[in-house]
Order: sequence, then structure tokens, then C-alpha cells
Amino acid sequence: SAAGTKLKPPPVTRYNLNNVTTTSRPLENRENILILTPMARFNQAYWDNLLRLSYPHELITLGFILPRTKEGNLATRELQTRIAKTQTQSPERDRFKSIIILREDLDPSLYPLATQDEHERHKLANQKARRSAMAKARNSLLFSTLGPSTSWVLWLDADVVETPPTLIQDLAQHDKPIITPNCFQRYYNSKTKTMDERPYDFNNWIDSDTARELASKMGPEEVLFEGYAEMATLRTLMAYLAKEDGEEGRDLHEEVPLDGVGGAALMVKADVHRDGAMFPAFPFYHLIETEGFARMAKRLGWEAVGLPNYKVYHYNE
Amino acid sequence: SAAGTKLKPPPVTRYNLNNVTTTSRPLENRENILILTPMARFNQAYWDNLLRLSYPHELITLGFILPRTKEGNLATRELQTRIAKTQTQSPERDRFKSIIILREDLDPSLYPLATQDEHERHKLANQKARRSAMAKARNSLLFSTLGPSTSWVLWLDADVVETPPTLIQDLAQHDKPIITPNCFQRYYNSKTKTMDERPYDFNNWIDSDTARELASKMGPEEVLFEGYAEMATLRTLMAYLAKEDGEEGRDLHEEVPLDGVGGAALMVKADVHRDGAMFPAFPFYHLIETEGFARMAKRLGWEAVGLPNYKVYHYNE
Ligand SMILES: Nc1nc2c(ncn2[C@@H]2O[C@H](COP(=O)(O)OP(=O)(O)O)[C@@H](O)[C@H]2O)c(=O)[nH]1
Ligand SMILES: Nc1nc2c(ncn2[C@@H]2O[C@H](COP(=O)(O)OP(=O)(O)O)[C@@H](O)[C@H]2O)c(=O)[nH]1
Ligand SMILES: [Mn+2]
Ligand SMILES: [Mn+2]
Repeated sequence: SAAGTKLKPPPVTRYNLNNVTTTSRPLENRENILILTPMARFNQAYWDNLLRLSYPHELITLGFILPRTKEGNLATRELQTRIAKTQTQSPERDRFKSIIILREDLDPSLYPLATQDEHERHKLANQKARRSAMAKARNSLLFSTLGPSTSWVLWLDADVVETPPTLIQDLAQHDKPIITPNCFQRYYNSKTKTMDERPYDFNNWIDSDTARELASKMGPEEVLFEGYAEMATLRTLMAYLAKEDGEEGRDLHEEVPLDGVGGAALMVKADVHRDGAMFPAFPFYHLIETEGFARMAKRLGWEAVGLPNYKVYHYNE
Repeated sequence: SAAGTKLKPPPVTRYNLNNVTTTSRPLENRENILILTPMARFNQAYWDNLLRLSYPHELITLGFILPRTKEGNLATRELQTRIAKTQTQSPERDRFKSIIILREDLDPSLYPLATQDEHERHKLANQKARRSAMAKARNSLLFSTLGPSTSWVLWLDADVVETPPTLIQDLAQHDKPIITPNCFQRYYNSKTKTMDERPYDFNNWIDSDTARELASKMGPEEVLFEGYAEMATLRTLMAYLAKEDGEEGRDLHEEVPLDGVGGAALMVKADVHRDGAMFPAFPFYHLIETEGFARMAKRLGWEAVGLPNYKVYHYNE
């Protein structure tokens, strides 16, 4: 098709994966961060919090995947408006290195799920189909955006509305292959008549003998979900390990080892994914999606840790 | 760091995964192909064959991963020389869209493997470590190069030295999620005193009850390898299903369903990988690497087929 015209030679890019560092000092080493967000709805508070992240935006690539529902169309338009503003009108230090927006073919049988409210979404009967669809969305996003020069992937849900601005530096500082803060939710406590907070994400856990025994008796297609009374796993939930503000011995950077992780805010060394650790959309050791990811990463020799006292906040619908 | 200077706004790329087609007519639809090659040694015949592929090179991205061994260093230099020549001095139609070269951190315990000859490589005792390292190399390459606009991934080993120039079009025409030709090897037949050919790749197979039974008795860490007398699986090997040239009823495009696949020449719809299908470096249903990939893809609802009569040729050391 280029016959007769003189084109410049196509790009030949040589990357040396071993020259891409992933260290506890990403800023000094100018490491590239890929922030990945599956997004069903656009939340202004998420966007504002993202813009406040103090890691140099010129080292941050953003990747989004949105469903092809009406709600997803609306969210895509809202997201594009904010992106256009940031990338062209905002001060240069606010602008991100690059931004990729993907749309996903949603399984028509799942369309109702996307419009479900928090209560419906969390029903046990809906979990397997919903988490399996989420796993595929996360994988599509990951496989399509991770590049040879990416050092870290930060998974950040679209309804995480409040994090410390130093989130990336703070998590990287631990130099762990997989690390996650504790995801809480602010709410109005009608008893005390004040704003309060409560644990939100129950996917960050340490395994228990009970859960292992439950799993061992399950059929190959069964999945063990966390946070359901019908399925008492007796796992230790990081959500409940947070020490109170001012409690003796409270260390913001205390680590606990985790066997399962959630995806609300999850920092992963790119090499963990490159080894093949993805989000299984099928039962993997009776786990699925982000919890299955932690299991698969462990299978590949990578450990996960959580920071019970380091909090990020989920939107309250 | 950009303070005081006026930068142009960073790129915002909007991709719509649903607008990227993956069809039986990739050429008419101008579909992007990603050819991925793990390469331990540079083989001139592989490169010459690659250049002869008639699919428009401007739609082809090449990705390579080479080990950090002495041999890998040498192969990297040879590859770069050929690339530089093609991308700058060759006619425009020979030039590829873009080329990415990755180097992999090879597990030091595996260093000897890379320099092993065909016989040593194929020993059963060496298979698990070797195939696991290959799986990680393939995943690194895949995760780092697959982009949002990739339609197909063609896995092509660096020692596949002869394919029809229409390989991509011929395989795509079947419109299958995973499709592989039959990998043979040319050799000098000392009995007939003529050049002859023999089956080479035994990883393309249809499962058997015997193999399923063997697997069911294995410990969780055990892997069932194909093509070893020590482990008679009685699987149907596509390698032996090829009809002779001129044999009655021989159809170049005959399909057989496969349960395990090899990686010598393997065409995969990008969406199969995007759903999360990768090359397990750990035993997955007692399978590993490309064979484990086929199993994982099936788990995700994608089927593999082989073309017993459509041949490509492996180098003869
Ligand atoms: N692409 C995509 N994202 C989704 C879909 N459903 C939810 N999300 C997003 O995925 C993340 C987690 O989902 P959410 O429903 O908030 O999970 P929960 O907080 O655990 O109930 C959020 O960022 C959602 O906006 C979907 O169908 N497709
Ligand atoms: N990156 C990388 N590629 C390798 C390594 N070992 C082999 N390869 C390549 O991987 C492909 C398959 O390996 P090969 O040894 O030919 O397998 P076989 O033909 O099944 O014996 C070929 O393209 C090799 O050049 C390795 O350690 N690292
Ligand atoms: Mn949420
Ligand atoms: Mn080979």
C-alpha cells in the first residue's frame, strides 16, 4: 500500500527487561507505573483522587476498561471529558504519560449485574458469574496495556475515592511483589451521630484450616467466596486487623502475609504478571478473580502482603 | 521535570476492543498480527522464511525474547543486524510495523539447558524445569507485547525454517480461536538415500482414556509429558495423522480437534489470550507450557484445532 511513497523506517524498539527496575525507590529510578481501572460507573471523587497522586504523572500510564452497557457508555463519555481536560488544559505536571480506554464485550447474560446495586452485587448466588466476568475484564485490560517498560501495575477500582497522595511511593517502599492497603468505607453512624468508617473489602485474607477443609470437599467447579454467612471460612480477614487510630503499637506500615487479595487497590510488580499470574475466570484452587490471582502468583513463587493500618476508602453508594 | 518547558500534550489513545476484528479474512480487514518468537539461537533460515511471509509486513509486529546466556547474547546481535538491514535498507514492503526485542532473566539453575543439544533437551528428566522456564519466557513476551489493536498472535519458534508464505492467511481462513499446522523435520534418509521428512512436534494431541487415567493417579506436582516411552499415554498424535502426498482423500485443510498443542507454529485469536489464557509454568491439570495453554483456553471456552496435512518444518541440527 506504500508503493511509490517514501516512508520513514518503522520503529524498532529494543527493550532489555533486565534494565527495567522495580524497586522500593521507584521515583528515584524513574520507574513506569501502569494504573489499571475496570470502570462500570464514573465517579468524580475517584478522578479527583487520581489527579492528587503525587507520583510524577509523566511516569504514569492509565488504562481503563468499561462495559458496553448504557451505563458504561455514559461513564466512557464522562471519563473522556475529564481526560481531555487534564491532558490538554491542566498544568503539565497533572498530565499522564498516556491513557488507554478499552471497551469490553459484556456477556449479555451478565448485563443485569452491571446495573445492580451494592446489595444485589454482593449476593452469593451472583458471585461466580460476576467475578468470572470481572476476571476477564481485568485480564483484557492487563494483556492489552502492560508494556516492556512497565515496572509496577497498580490496580485501582473506580469507586476507590480516597487514598493518601503518596499511595504509590508508600506501597512500593515495601518492595513486595504484591501489596495491598486496607479498603474501608466512610458512613454516617446514626448511633454516635458522627461520620465513622467500617471495613469494606473482605477479599484480603489469611487462609484457615476450615477454609482448606471446605475447599477439599468441593467439586471441581465450586468456588469458595469470602464474607458470606452461608460459608463460614474462619479465615483471618485483614479488614478486621486494623488497629484503632492512637491504639498502642499501631504502625501504619505493619505488614501481614495474605493468601487472598482484593482488587480495590493492589500494587503488583510487573514481573509477577509477566510470569503469567493473571485473574482466573474459572475456579483455580476453588478461588476466582483477584483471590485466584494471589493463589496463582503464590504458585509462581510470589508472595502477597497487606497493610492493615494503611487505609484507602471505597465510595458509599 | 518539565517545568518551564512547553510539552505537547501526552498521547490519549482510545481503543474500542469491539472494533478490532479477528476474522477469516484478516487481509481484507487489515488486521494486526503479532508474531512472537522465543529465541535461544539465531537461525538464518528462520529469518529468511519470516521475510517471505506474504501477509502485509506493515500489519505485522515482531516480538522476540532471548535468554541472557552467551548464546543468547550472540543471537541478539545477529538478530539486530538482520533487523537493522530489513527495516532500513530493504524494500518498504519487507519492513515490519514494529519490532520489540526482550531479554529474559534466565534462572541460573537452567543455564545448562539452553546450550543442550536436541537429545539432552528432550530427556524426560529435564522436561519439567525446561518447559516451566519456556512458559515464563512465553508469558513475559506475550504480556509485554500484546496491544489493544492486536487481532491475532502467531507463535513461531526460532527453529521453524520453512512454512508456506501464505501461512497467516491459510491459518486465519479457518476462523478458529487456536489453530496449528503439523510440524515436520526434513532429514537425509540413509536407507532410501534421498531427502525425506518425519514428524517432529509431538505436543499436538488428542487426549486418551489412558492419559486421563494416568493423570488422575498423579500427585499435584506431577506433569504428564508426551512422546516418552516411559509414559505411554496412548494419546492420538497429530504428527502421525498426516496423509501421504497424493494419498486418496488428502485435504490440505482437514481439521482435527486438539486437546494439547505445541508452540512451533501456533495461531491464536488475541481474545483467547486477553481472557487470561497463558502458558502455565506450573502443572495445570498435569500439563505445562503450550499443552497447559490449550487446557486453560478450553477452561475458558476456546477450542483448539490442528491441520494434520498442512506442514511446517523444523530445523535439523
Ligand atoms: N469493565 C467492567 N468493570 C466493572 C464491571 N462491573 C464492575 N466494574 C468495576 O470493577 C470494580 C469492582 O467492581 P464493584 O462492583 O465495585 O465491586 P465491589 O466493590 O467488590 O462490589 C469497580 O471499579 C467497578 O466500577 C463490568 O461489568 N465491567
Ligand atoms: N527465550 C528463550 N527461548 C528459548 C530458550 N530455550 C529455547 N528457546 C527457544 O524456544 C523455542 C522452543 O525451544 P526448542 O529448544 O527448540 O524446543 P524443541 O524444538 O521442542 O526441542 C525455540 O524457538 C528456541 O529457540 C530459553 O531458555 N529462552
Ligand atoms: Mn467497588
Ligand atoms: Mn525447536
